Amino acid sequence: MSNEALGLGKMISQLSSTAPSVKLDSSPLRMEFLRRKLKFIQDTMKEQGVDMWITFSREGNEDPLAHDLRFSDLTWRSAAIIEQNGKRTAIVGSLESETVRQEKFYDEIIGYGSEGAAPKLRDFVKKRKPQKIAVNKSHDEGAADGLTSGMETYLRAALKDYAKRLVSAEDLAIALRARLVPGEVELVKKAIRECENIYDSLEEMIKPGKKDKEVHEFAHKLLKEKKLSPAWAIDRCPSVLVGNNPMSHVGYFGAKIKRGDFVKLDFGVKYEGYCSDIQRNYFVGPGLVPKTVQRMFDTAREANNAALSVLKPGLPGYKVDEAGRRLIVRGGFPEYKHALGHALGRSTHEIGPLLGPRWPNRYGRQGEKAVQKDMVFTIEPSVTSKLGTCNLEQDVLVTSKGYEELSKPQEALIQVG
Amino acid sequence: MSNEALGLGKMISQLSSTAPSVKLDSSPLRMEFLRRKLKFIQDTMKEQGVDMWITFSREGNEDPLAHDLRFSDLTWRSAAIIEQNGKRTAIVGSLESETVRQEKFYDEIIGYGSEGAAPKLRDFVKKRKPQKIAVNKSHDEGAADGLTSGMETYLRAALKDYAKRLVSAEDLAIALRARLVPGEVELVKKAIRECENIYDSLEEMIKPGKKDKEVHEFAHKLLKEKKLSPAWAIDRCPSVLVGNNPMSHVGYFGAKIKRGDFVKLDFGVKYEGYCSDIQRNYFVGPGLVPKTVQRMFDTAREANNAALSVLKPGLPGYKVDEAGRRLIVRGGFPEYKHALGHALGRSTHEIGPLLGPRWPNRYGRQGEKAVQKDMVFTIEPSVTSKLGTCNLEQDVLVTSKGYEELSKPQEALIQVG
Repeated sequence: MSNEALGLGKMISQLSSTAPSVKLDSSPLRMEFLRRKLKFIQDTMKEQGVDMWITFSREGNEDPLAHDLRFSDLTWRSAAIIEQNGKRTAIVGSLESETVRQEKFYDEIIGYGSEGAAPKLRDFVKKRKPQKIAVNKSHDEGAADGLTSGMETYLRAALKDYAKRLVSAEDLAIALRARLVPGEVELVKKAIRECENIYDSLEEMIKPGKKDKEVHEFAHKLLKEKKLSPAWAIDRCPSVLVGNNPMSHVGYFGAKIKRGDFVKLDFGVKYEGYCSDIQRNYFVGPGLVPKTVQRMFDTAREANNAALSVLKPGLPGYKVDEAGRRLIVRGGFPEYKHALGHALGRSTHEIGPLLGPRWPNRYGRQGEKAVQKDMVFTIEPSVTSKLGTCNLEQDVLVTSKGYEELSKPQEALIQVG
Repeated sequence: MSNEALGLGKMISQLSSTAPSVKLDSSPLRMEFLRRKLKFIQDTMKEQGVDMWITFSREGNEDPLAHDLRFSDLTWRSAAIIEQNGKRTAIVGSLESETVRQEKFYDEIIGYGSEGAAPKLRDFVKKRKPQKIAVNKSHDEGAADGLTSGMETYLRAALKDYAKRLVSAEDLAIALRARLVPGEVELVKKAIRECENIYDSLEEMIKPGKKDKEVHEFAHKLLKEKKLSPAWAIDRCPSVLVGNNPMSHVGYFGAKIKRGDFVKLDFGVKYEGYCSDIQRNYFVGPGLVPKTVQRMFDTAREANNAALSVLKPGLPGYKVDEAGRRLIVRGGFPEYKHALGHALGRSTHEIGPLLGPRWPNRYGRQGEKAVQKDMVFTIEPSVTSKLGTCNLEQDVLVTSKGYEELSKPQEALIQVG
């Protein structure tokens, strides 16, 4: 594979010994990722007839894609422009021309002074006469919605008549963030492996008399020992739910584990900037697993399998959700109040097609988008009874023909205690 | 002082032994800061006739103020509402009601389901009948411009007729971020002290034969040893400029220090989430300081002093800039291409009045805003000649009568080598 030829494997293996966030940013590896993704972006631009993509950012509320585009930590209004032919131009405050030059990604850097960004931005666009200019505005996706209210007003005034040609860059942002190149998939796999290892070590802590808080804090101890970060807000990662504590994005409720409890953990690890997101389900024995708990588990397993059986490129996300949701409702359990799964990458909740229901007021059109090859998704339909919520969240990669399981699927309840 | 009565001093002294970012967020100290700042916010709301302030955020591009408002890391569209009477209401996805409850800041938490955020948001506003609703949109200030294009469209549709009553919350954001309570000033002082200590240790590295890169990396080594973070992007902090390398936001240009060089460093440390920002200026001896270098230094010192002599609450920022700028131009040096100073706090470039020129296309109306008591500013007019750029950046606190120097002002060139 060409990533071997480029020594990507070696670069990745060297990463493990470096400090997490800082080094990766400046590494040749991240630059290599970006160069490969540029092709995804250009392909999407061609498909949609987009002539140029402007990411317009400033300090204080930086565009979430600025970092991916090697355009971060700039002070004044700054435009990162990618044209359909792949050319990259930066328009920045003149004190930061050299800053961007040192990033080695932009072909041309245009500095401005006390006149502000507008004149050079307008000149650039006028020369190109684009029919469609994509900007980071999106109804459904936070990370594709980086253009702020004040910046949009400024940009529209700067572009004058061309402001009528602005379109959403949502699909370009998805190409950049959710379509993973092989080296990125390797990092997600490492994040998954580390998460699973911590899960294994955590097991001893899940037993009668222990508090949910102790399990939560033990996971942090293990993270610290391994110099790893959680995949989402540390006060909610892992989320430890005991018995019928309601499903919530919290670290714990303050319950004590006792015999006969159903326990569920939701946990993820960030490895060199890439995330994992896995749930595990336990029964605190000894003793027979109650029938209701076993039926929750079996239904959840079947729902995951039903979703996986349809997962492939080209299918709209809502159909994957539907496969799992229908099975759960038919089993007599309530409909879960969230999506069956989401893209996974640099963020735990990565932008992309949502494997979610058609609830336009909540999810907009996220579920209408088609699943694409090279995206990683979580599969996590919930089955709730009065004994708790069972969720066998696993992480899978979409391949040309279907999918590949990246995390080990949970095939049986873990009996602990 | 009342912060002693509350044990704030003790809380702050305990902080030094804790991990930087994580602990502070959940600490009683940060909650205490926020409760005190709520008063500043309410006062500003009354002055401006604002009935409620809505911070409307979601994951992927979180509002920069969400963290301050104990409202961070929420998944779905979430509204943090502060009313003029001080009441706090959160409208969030129902899986995150408990998450926000655990933050202990909101009086009422309203969860929503598959219907999305709009109905509950509209009901809330309709009941209150506000004349003015402040939202985070700002022409001039990034951190006060957290409402994104897609979120604004959603909010306007949700509020229907009330959307006509939206105004900018810029001054509320400034009250929250730039007006520091005494405990915060203590943390800024600690950040300054740590920065000055590292500067002292760095001096031995600035000598003939050393590269700018080595000085930059030595600062990182010292930061690491002290478990401190830089106050801005690590690849640009410190910025080491040798001789006539042009003023830029970069770490270094790749120069070697030699006898007779003028050298300038720009460096800041983050301490428990609060920033310092200081420049120091060196002459590489032995030998007499050239007259031009000495004149740059003397002019820079006089420009700082001229700015400080007018600095007091109520004065528009541009007048402070003018005092320093005029002196430099009269001295025959070129006008510097930036602002004389900026607010300092949780961010290095904090929002607030700008001590900057009236360049509307670059700075909007930031320089028109009046300096306020309890704000910390940098004072940093630049004096440039063909031998380099001299800048005696120092940090000062605005008091009721004038100012207090927080960092040690540089009174003479530091002769090294």
